[in-house]
Amino acid sequence: MSSSDIFASEVTGTMVLILLGGGVCAAVNLKRSKAFEAGWVAVAFGWGFAVLTGAYIAQPSGAHLNPAVTLALAIKGDISWGDVPVYMGSELLGAMLGAVLVWLAYYSQFQVTLRDPEAAEMKNANPGPVHGVFFTSPEVRHPFLNFLTEVIATFVLIFAILTQGLSANGKGLSTLGALITALVVVGIGLSLGGPTGYAINPVRDLGPRIVHALLPLPNKGGSDWAYAWVPVVGPLAGAAIAAGLYNLAWG
Amino acid sequence: MSSSDIFASEVTGTMVLILLGGGVCAAVNLKRSKAFEAGWVAVAFGWGFAVLTGAYIAQPSGAHLNPAVTLALAIKGDISWGDVPVYMGSELLGAMLGAVLVWLAYYSQFQVTLRDPEAAEMKNANPGPVHGVFFTSPEVRHPFLNFLTEVIATFVLIFAILTQGLSANGKGLSTLGALITALVVVGIGLSLGGPTGYAINPVRDLGPRIVHALLPLPNKGGSDWAYAWVPVVGPLAGAAIAAGLYNLAWG
Amino acid sequence: MSSSDIFASEVTGTMVLILLGGGVCAAVNLKRSKAFEAGWVAVAFGWGFAVLTGAYIAQPSGAHLNPAVTLALAIKGDISWGDVPVYMGSELLGAMLGAVLVWLAYYSQFQVTLRDPEAAEMKNANPGPVHGVFFTSPEVRHPFLNFLTEVIATFVLIFAILTQGLSANGKGLSTLGALITALVVVGIGLSLGGPTGYAINPVRDLGPRIVHALLPLPNKGGSDWAYAWVPVVGPLAGAAIAAGLYNLAWG
Amino acid sequence: MSSSDIFASEVTGTMVLILLGGGVCAAVNLKRSKAFEAGWVAVAFGWGFAVLTGAYIAQPSGAHLNPAVTLALAIKGDISWGDVPVYMGSELLGAMLGAVLVWLAYYSQFQVTLRDPEAAEMKNANPGPVHGVFFTSPEVRHPFLNFLTEVIATFVLIFAILTQGLSANGKGLSTLGALITALVVVGIGLSLGGPTGYAINPVRDLGPRIVHALLPLPNKGGSDWAYAWVPVVGPLAGAAIAAGLYNLAWG
Repeated sequence: MSSSDIFASEVTGTMVLILLGGGVCAAVNLKRSKAFEAGWVAVAFGWGFAVLTGAYIAQPSGAHLNPAVTLALAIKGDISWGDVPVYMGSELLGAMLGAVLVWLAYYSQFQVTLRDPEAAEMKNANPGPVHGVFFTSPEVRHPFLNFLTEVIATFVLIFAILTQGLSANGKGLSTLGALITALVVVGIGLSLGGPTGYAINPVRDLGPRIVHALLPLPNKGGSDWAYAWVPVVGPLAGAAIAAGLYNLAWG
Repeated sequence: MSSSDIFASEVTGTMVLILLGGGVCAAVNLKRSKAFEAGWVAVAFGWGFAVLTGAYIAQPSGAHLNPAVTLALAIKGDISWGDVPVYMGSELLGAMLGAVLVWLAYYSQFQVTLRDPEAAEMKNANPGPVHGVFFTSPEVRHPFLNFLTEVIATFVLIFAILTQGLSANGKGLSTLGALITALVVVGIGLSLGGPTGYAINPVRDLGPRIVHALLPLPNKGGSDWAYAWVPVVGPLAGAAIAAGLYNLAWG
Repeated sequence: MSSSDIFASEVTGTMVLILLGGGVCAAVNLKRSKAFEAGWVAVAFGWGFAVLTGAYIAQPSGAHLNPAVTLALAIKGDISWGDVPVYMGSELLGAMLGAVLVWLAYYSQFQVTLRDPEAAEMKNANPGPVHGVFFTSPEVRHPFLNFLTEVIATFVLIFAILTQGLSANGKGLSTLGALITALVVVGIGLSLGGPTGYAINPVRDLGPRIVHALLPLPNKGGSDWAYAWVPVVGPLAGAAIAAGLYNLAWG
Repeated sequence: MSSSDIFASEVTGTMVLILLGGGVCAAVNLKRSKAFEAGWVAVAFGWGFAVLTGAYIAQPSGAHLNPAVTLALAIKGDISWGDVPVYMGSELLGAMLGAVLVWLAYYSQFQVTLRDPEAAEMKNANPGPVHGVFFTSPEVRHPFLNFLTEVIATFVLIFAILTQGLSANGKGLSTLGALITALVVVGIGLSLGGPTGYAINPVRDLGPRIVHALLPLPNKGGSDWAYAWVPVVGPLAGAAIAAGLYNLAWG
């Protein structure tokens, strides 16, 4: 598969992943949304079906949508290391585009939420409802423990993907695998999302965080760059551990 | 496939889609329903499984159930432009029949809700609980932004359908595709339904709106025709953009 | 398939259907249950996965589990009319056994709920929490409208089953069909369960109602036999209409 | 399959099962979790998708993950009795590892919840929020009735697994079977989890209970060993009854 085909597929798929995933965060966190305060079950299924939708759209390139998946498949040997930069770059760009689309789709809700006098007052508080649409924040801030939670959650995701086998093109999920993976992501969200909000994907956090820093949102507060390394390094470490263990025991 | 076969299949399937989809809106919005105030998760899964049920019933004609799908498949070249009017007409008629069945199934609940003194007072308020059963209303009224939200949400739906491939008869969803599409619709509802209530289907809104205008409901208020173009034109525009992009990049 | 094989399969499958379906009603309605007041989404998924479990167990006989399904398949011609009595009798017996198992599994919860002084006072009120475990009750009592709601809801169920095609043995659901049917039942519950509690199956209501009349429950109140015909005749009528229309238009 | 292959597969799969299953209990029960008080629907889907994830990971060994499944397959004759000890030992060890990972992933939440002055006061109360992460507790304590509930719930699980047929390697679930089984587990949780918290798996309760006794948690209270036999013996008895009945009627 050519680099431009990978690029088109991964950008589009990751864009849709973040549009729907960030969208459910907007839906439950922003005022004047019909899904306001719909609860954690809505969030977990919303992210899971975001994976499903993005995975179907990006099937031509194997639907990585996540640098942690790309890294694990490279370690396992299913893709060449030379393809890693185009995968990861496409994923980051797609995530940024998705975050911009969330902002457009929920433009009025962002305005209403951010212009609320209460929001103005607490603009530096973390995690505010608007921050939660763009990037993850831990409930109890402790970088090492937060990192550990992301490692554990991503380990589960990657290990499940690796043991399911790959699609015919040898690069990613099969059709049934995409459905299973989506439900696994629902499960990870329900079970392991409590402490940190389960990034389990470096670009899910970094892409929208960059967009948050750039967008002209009123009273938006800072973009919490001090925490930004955790949801990038944690998922990559979890993926490397899963792929290494897979190669040792199942390879 | 003959026009009369398309007609029978699409009328029945879209009737069931709107019966179940409008039904879940009645179930959570009307007083004296066992599902009263069951929340947004109920709404999103209710509409998704409405798509599933309608899609299984309308498999002979490819289960469009939605003029946005019909338009996209015509642009892509999977159906002939000559079949478009019978598809779209059948979909509109089916949607109207479905809305009448919702009214019959929830007849007592409509009576109780509309005869409530509070309802009489706020009969021109939008969106009231009864309006929500028939047509969508934005949380923050801003026609261009509401249009944009419908374009984005429908783009996701149509792009996912187009990239999943078609059934053996070349006209619509495969069996597995119907299940996936239903779950994608759950995801779109959870993630992008917050601002406008996600019509993402012109007849889902227009059919029941016509029925609302015609039914002898007490204290029913107006049918909000000023907004009616948004959930018709938005989904068609989103579908056209998705099909155009698909033809460019994947065609 | 011999009558005794049909009997063993349908009794077991329907027993499990009602054990899990009645079980979720007990789980959300009875005091001292961990799922107390878990809401309508729990009820709808609980009944849907009850269908799934029962359908897998009863695959040898086609997994009717419901006289409305048996009637429709006889009208369609997939089973002989001579097999109808053994199917329907097995389904009724299985439903009764399932209701007894619900009582055993939730024995303490029934005791706590029924010995509550409040329960003693309202023992003739309908629907009380204990009644709801055994039989359906309409929110607004109006026999003709309640009947109509059951006809409409069962029509959807049966029409979806008929159009999905049958399993290899020509008597019931295929494996994938069982999963789809389960999700259709979730959808019917979410969308059309509000007015009457969606029996959509004569034995789901009649079997546990007989058991309610027989069990030595304290303060149990009457078994509401005046309403008992609605959830029996309504589903059978809906099934007959669906099968007749199917034979006319798709046969 | 060699004992060491069974060991690697079952340890890993059961570890993930308990990590995700115990994780959802932590997510909804512990303070400062984003899913705090997300409700019983979250718990039931969380455990179901925990089964799904564990089952995919442990496919090489048939994905028992549960001594009740191992016992039933031995009675049915699908595995040799000589393999039973390695299966059951691996399952217990995996469950203990999973409980340790839950503790690590939710370390801060455990600390916050247990150091709460309220927790210190009620440290011997059962079931406290922290106990619920590790082991099940009945809502109404009555050993025989609690045992009966576990027998009934496990009977459903095992009977459904046995009638679904086995995978190609003759030792456990097929791919589709794993998905169905996961949804059956969601259904059992929704429907039969109310009285005892549905262990339906001896190691799901015993493994984390041992870990609870060993971990240096502040104010953790006792490990309720008096109840520990119920969620071990009940599931094994339910499995034996299901397998015996299966051999009699379907064998």
